[in-house]
Parts: sequence; structure tokens; C-alpha cells
Amino acid sequence: MKHISILGAGRSSTILIRYLLDTAKTRNWRVTVADTDLGQAIAKINGHPNGKALSLDAVQTMERQDLVKQSDLVVSLLPPNLHHLVAQDCLHFGKNLVNASYLSKELLALDQTVRERGLTFMGEMGLDPGIDHMSAMEKINEIREKGGKLTAFRSYTGGLIAPESDDNPWHYKFTWNPRNVVLAGQNTARYLEQGKIKYLPYHRLFKNYWKIEVDGLGPYEVYANRDSLPYRELYGLEGISSLLRGTIRANGFCDAWNALAQLGLTDPSFQLTPTPAWTYASLMESYATDDSPGEVKEKTARMLGLDPNSEPMKKLEWLGLFSNQPIPPLENPSPAVVLEDLLLKKWALLPEDKDMIIMRHEFEYELAGKTKRLLSTLVMKGRDEQDTAMARLVGLPLGIFSKLLLEGKVQAPGVHIPVMPEVYKPVLAELATFGVVFQDQEETL
Amino acid sequence: MKHISILGAGRSSTILIRYLLDTAKTRNWRVTVADTDLGQAIAKINGHPNGKALSLDAVQTMERQDLVKQSDLVVSLLPPNLHHLVAQDCLHFGKNLVNASYLSKELLALDQTVRERGLTFMGEMGLDPGIDHMSAMEKINEIREKGGKLTAFRSYTGGLIAPESDDNPWHYKFTWNPRNVVLAGQNTARYLEQGKIKYLPYHRLFKNYWKIEVDGLGPYEVYANRDSLPYRELYGLEGISSLLRGTIRANGFCDAWNALAQLGLTDPSFQLTPTPAWTYASLMESYATDDSPGEVKEKTARMLGLDPNSEPMKKLEWLGLFSNQPIPPLENPSPAVVLEDLLLKKWALLPEDKDMIIMRHEFEYELAGKTKRLLSTLVMKGRDEQDTAMARLVGLPLGIFSKLLLEGKVQAPGVHIPVMPEVYKPVLAELATFGVVFQDQEETL
Repeated sequence: MKHISILGAGRSSTILIRYLLDTAKTRNWRVTVADTDLGQAIAKINGHPNGKALSLDAVQTMERQDLVKQSDLVVSLLPPNLHHLVAQDCLHFGKNLVNASYLSKELLALDQTVRERGLTFMGEMGLDPGIDHMSAMEKINEIREKGGKLTAFRSYTGGLIAPESDDNPWHYKFTWNPRNVVLAGQNTARYLEQGKIKYLPYHRLFKNYWKIEVDGLGPYEVYANRDSLPYRELYGLEGISSLLRGTIRANGFCDAWNALAQLGLTDPSFQLTPTPAWTYASLMESYATDDSPGEVKEKTARMLGLDPNSEPMKKLEWLGLFSNQPIPPLENPSPAVVLEDLLLKKWALLPEDKDMIIMRHEFEYELAGKTKRLLSTLVMKGRDEQDTAMARLVGLPLGIFSKLLLEGKVQAPGVHIPVMPEVYKPVLAELATFGVVFQDQEETL
Repeated sequence: MKHISILGAGRSSTILIRYLLDTAKTRNWRVTVADTDLGQAIAKINGHPNGKALSLDAVQTMERQDLVKQSDLVVSLLPPNLHHLVAQDCLHFGKNLVNASYLSKELLALDQTVRERGLTFMGEMGLDPGIDHMSAMEKINEIREKGGKLTAFRSYTGGLIAPESDDNPWHYKFTWNPRNVVLAGQNTARYLEQGKIKYLPYHRLFKNYWKIEVDGLGPYEVYANRDSLPYRELYGLEGISSLLRGTIRANGFCDAWNALAQLGLTDPSFQLTPTPAWTYASLMESYATDDSPGEVKEKTARMLGLDPNSEPMKKLEWLGLFSNQPIPPLENPSPAVVLEDLLLKKWALLPEDKDMIIMRHEFEYELAGKTKRLLSTLVMKGRDEQDTAMARLVGLPLGIFSKLLLEGKVQAPGVHIPVMPEVYKPVLAELATFGVVFQDQEETL
């Protein structure tokens, strides 16, 4: 009887747990879900006979090792900084490990030892990173196999709200870690364009976005996502001219988010000083450099170089930034903390809301003297606030790969991300049965 | 025989060491100068019979404690992060401590213990912080004593180049830690204006500067310096409406430095990727968001919203940012590291160059129904590259206070900054004999 342990029962675990419990049923496997919040673990198990909920504080070495020792495979949904602890335990007790986070240098450094012990540590096995790697590598290898020479690769993902649930002027709601959304892009983005390395510092990031068109859904915006350069090596794209990874947002989002960034409201690095009557409007006054009398909205617009009636200003106003609503008491109130608190209320998913994931790869390649462009696009909508496309597309790859590994249907000893055909082929094949299918459009330029 | 130990023999120690050696001569004191670079310590002692040079790595506990144990007073010019080690030793061995750095929370937490043992730890006893505290508190207390009510206090300091040595379009050369100059202002500035807290994030800091006029020298620019709010309490200014501390730069400096900041060249937070033919122009190309063909200078100007022939662009060009000069190999080449390396060459003091310090306090107060403004201004020029006004104005207060303390002419048990009359009065009085004199102009508004 195989035993799978899932560490962490948060937002992104729902579908993973459901998939593994369904799988466990026909195979007589055991699934333990461990979380500091036992109630959450119990709720996710929902009385399933193959499931067990456990209260676990993952920083407690004894408790954590007790669980790892009993497991055949550990799926870690813990915060990235805790993965290393779990990895050390898995190495020590000879257990396989799967997670959806970016592989750290510490984990990569274990590759040789993990390989020697015949174990598999698979990282970046979620959506982004995860499905992005697998779907891109499938196309890249197909293009190579038919003799094509890749000249450009651009890949964008967005966790969005489905049009039918889109009822706010930002066309955005939280389906993922709100703090990460607020802090997104705060390093300089780096990518390749026509053979040149390009740098885009944070204060220009949301001004310099691209437009893409998604069939049946209309125009979207894309901004550059962190450092695209490592993907040259990860995907075997040495010599490629253009390489960019980006984040998709609704039309009009970037200009308004840029206004928040230019104001300074996304800054996590210092703490604001609450005043006796601290309101959003008074905070905006504190930021205004324009000392002429008048409404704070007008001053803010002038400072940002915007028309007070422009779309970005309407979005700021909709958030309530110019209102006399008090700012609630917050711990360590950096501007980013104040903004996150406000957005949590404004951008909350309603119970019936459907989220939507868009992933788009753009490949340009030369074949038989012609330049071709291939657009490969995944669109998936969620069902409701619980069964989100986000949770599905993070959870299913984790679940499918875990199952394949436990059943011996994939072998991949070492520390990896899913870029090898022996991994992505079976995972993508089963993902397709859940409707995870990319639509391709190819044209000759 | 008293024994003074000076930890650190760097740029700002020259005048301090000279002052303390001169003082030691007539009193038969001993002065030990300790530095990791023994040669530098020897050079600063320059054969003086009361001086001794010592090779010391201040992180080595045994060596450091050996020296502290033998001392009556320790002057620490070590990097701020090492002050705490020295303070612990001074507490342990019952020695007095003087430095010119901002008091850390760790040091402040020692106040009670230091006081109980009858010791004095004096921090912020240099120029800024140091002379700024003393000269401001003298005026603040004078205004109070005659019944005035302070409504505004603004204080600005600049380490500048004297007009007679000013031979570059930035009107600036390094007389102080170049890295601090490159990174200056990278936290959000906070100050009080008309009773309101104001925040000025880094990306707006060098756009929102003030102009001041200094008699006989002309206009200068001032930008807000870090967090001015703590000075309400430190100076006893609770209830004041306007409170600002700022940094003085030459006319035209801020717009050009703003261009560097907007480009992203002052960013220390990520590493650039050197390319085979890495030049300043190719780096500027990497930052250009404008993909139209043409000269990188024109693209950069367009991106910054500047005329290619504007003064800021001329200053960037003078630095060589659009030239095909190769960027030298640098360790961990963040944009800030590349910029600092370039500026070190361009803004180097020549042997005969005279630096210049300007400190300006602006007080507004109500007295007998009238509103008065008092401008109090210090201008001091250096003699040459070694004998700088900067080294003098950092070193003399340290030296004078150390002497007064050793001779028992001041008593100030506890951990302090120099805001008490019993400290600032004798120090300012002796500083005046070295020409450190503020010129006052008062007017009724």
C-alpha cells in the first residue's frame, strides 16, 4: 500500500487532493494531508476513506520527519523557503519529492546525491512553472524534429477572471497569492530581443507592455516576467535571438497598475506612519507633490501626468484611494501591505465566480527557407471560487506526475524540472483528458 | 597617561588623528591608530612620538578586546555594522566610546547599563550627523529661551566641490563614501510639511527638489534626506508644522541624477549580464525601450522625455555613457557597481582640489505676534585632496569631544547624540576656533 503525504492544504491544494484521493481509491493507496490548520486539512479530505488529515507545523523537525519516514512520496505545497527542509528529510529517508515551486540552488545542488540514491525530486511541476515548461518543450522538440530552427520564443501566462465573472473596472480578481500579485515584477526584468539583452526596471515595467489577441476573448496585455535568460539553457535554446516570458493581464490593467507603482503604493520596503484620522485620501495627500489647493484626486492625476477622468484614474478611484474611508489598523503597514489589504476586499472572488487561465506560447522558426510563426494557446475556466482553473492547473500536474512516479510509469532519477519528453509526454497526455489542450495557429511570415 | 584608540584610518580619519596627536603632545597621552591596512595607519601617524600604528582586523574578538582593554577611550570609525561589537567590548571593560555614525537601536538599548556604569557612549559626533545636531540645537534653544515658538525647521547639508576646483559639468566630485553617494535616497523620504506627513519615493526624489540661495555662492539644489520625522522627538520639536532634512547639491545636479535613477543605473539589487563586447553604449542599448533605429543617445533621451541637447543629457554624455569604451571587469556588476566604477574615475578629487561643505538651517518661529525666519549657514572649504573640509568637519568634533571627555570637562553618562547644551556648547566653542562658524540672517516675514 503506497502512502502519499501532501504538506500544505492551502488554496492551491484542492484539486490535487481530490485527484490523489480519487486515484488512491482504486489502488488502495493512503493520502495524508498535513497542515498547521487541521480544520483545513480535514475539510479537504472531506471524509474520504483513503484520506487522513494531520496537524503539522512543518518547521518542527520531529513531526515532519515522522511523516516523511512513513511516506512513499511527498508533495510539498509549503512556502518555498521550507522546501529545503523537506528535501533533506526525503533524501535522508529515501523518499521521492514533488513540488510546484521554482527549484532553488540548494535543491539543485542535491542532484548528484538524489540520482545516486535512485530518487526523484521534481520541482516546478505546477502551472507556471510547470505546464509552461512541458507544453513549450513539446513544441520546441516538435519544431526541432522537423528540422526547424527557432529564432524567437515568447511565453505568457495569466491568472485572470472569466468574462462572465468580470464585474470590476480592473477586470481582475485574486486567484493566487495576493502578496505575490502586489509585489510582482519588483526585480528588473531581463530578456532577449533581436539578439540583444534588454533590461526593464520596475518603474518602467508596467509602461512597456505588449498587446496580444486571444481568439474569442479579445485583446490582453503582457508585461515582462523576471529573468527570461535562464530559459536559454533550461530549454536548450542557445543561439536564439528573442526570448521573453511574460504575465498576461486584462486590457487596461497595466496603465492602472503602473499608476499604483508610480505612486509608490506597491513598495514593501518601509513602514508608513498612521495618523489619528488615517484615510486613503489622507495617505494620497501624503504622496502628493503638488501643493496647490484642490482635490487629492486632481493632485494625484497631475503628479502622475494623467487626466483625472482617464481610465487609470477611474480604476484608482474605484479602489477607494481618494475616499475618506479609514485605513484599518495593520501590522507593519508598508504601502504594499495597505494596498494588499484594500485589494483583498475589492478583488475577492465571489462564491460563483469563475477564474480563467490563459497560457500563450509564440514560436518563430525557420524551416526550408521560410519563417513560420506558431501560436499555441491554452484557455481554461474554473467552475467556482473553490474549483478554480488555477487550482486545477497547479494540482493536476502534481497529482498526475505523483501517480505516474508511484506506479513506476516514469523514471527520472535526480533533481529536475519537467523538460524531458519521458516526463512531459505522459503528463500532458493525461492532462488532455482533463481538457488541458492547447490550440495551435501557424502562419508563414 | 591617557590612552586613546582610534579604530579605522580611512579617508575621514586624517584630521581627527592630527588633532588628537597634537592634543596628546602637550598632555603626554598615547594615541593608537588601528586599521586592517597597517601602512595606512603608519602614514596617518607620520612618525609622531605620541602615536602608534597597529594592524587590526576589528572582527577578530581577541585582538579588538586587547586594544579596548588598554584604552581609556575608543573612537570608532569602523563601518556602522561593527560598532556594536566595539560597544560590547567598551561596556565589558568599562571604556568610553565615541563615533560619528547614526546610533543603532542596539546601541541605544545599552543606555541604562552604560549610564549605570558611569560610561559615555557618544554617537553621531561628526558632521552630518554631528555638527548639524549641535548647531541646530543651539539655535532651537536660543529661540525657545527668548520665547519663540518654532513652526518650521529645515536643515540641509552638502559635501560639495569649491567653485575654484569645479571643472566638470556635474559640479561634483567625491569627498565621501562613493557607494553612499550612488545609493543615496533609495528609501522613501519622509518629512512634515504644513502639519502633513509627506512621502517621497525614490523615483520622484530627484524630480522634487528645492532651490536655495547661498550668499556669494549662488543657487543650490536640495533633495529630501531619508526620514525627517524622528527629529521631532530628538530635537524636542513635538507640534512643529514643517520639518525637513535635506542634501545640498550643485545647481543642475538633481535633474541629471534623476536621469541616472530613471535609467535604472543606481540600482544595486541585481546583476547585469556582461556581453562579449560590453560597452557603456551597449549597456544603454539594453536599457532602451525605444526600438526604432538611431543613436543610443537619442533613444535614451526619448525614453527619459528629455531633449538630446538638454543639460542632463550633456551630463550623461560627459560621463561616457554613450561611448564605445568597454566596461571593465567588475565583481557582482549591479548597475550601481558599474556606475560607481565610472564615477570614481570621472569625479575623482585632484591633489590640489578643494572641497566645500555647506550646512544650512532654516528656522521659522513666532515671537510677539510676528513670524520670523532665521537662516544659519556654515560654509567651509578644504585645503587640498587630503585636508578636506569633510575630514575636518567629521574629525574635529570627534577629537574635541574625546579630549573634553578625557579631561573631565564634559559629563554625559549614557548613550547619546550631541543635543544637550553641556555637550554642544563646549564643542561648538572650540570648533569656532577652527573657523567653524555659522553666519546668521534673520528677517521678519
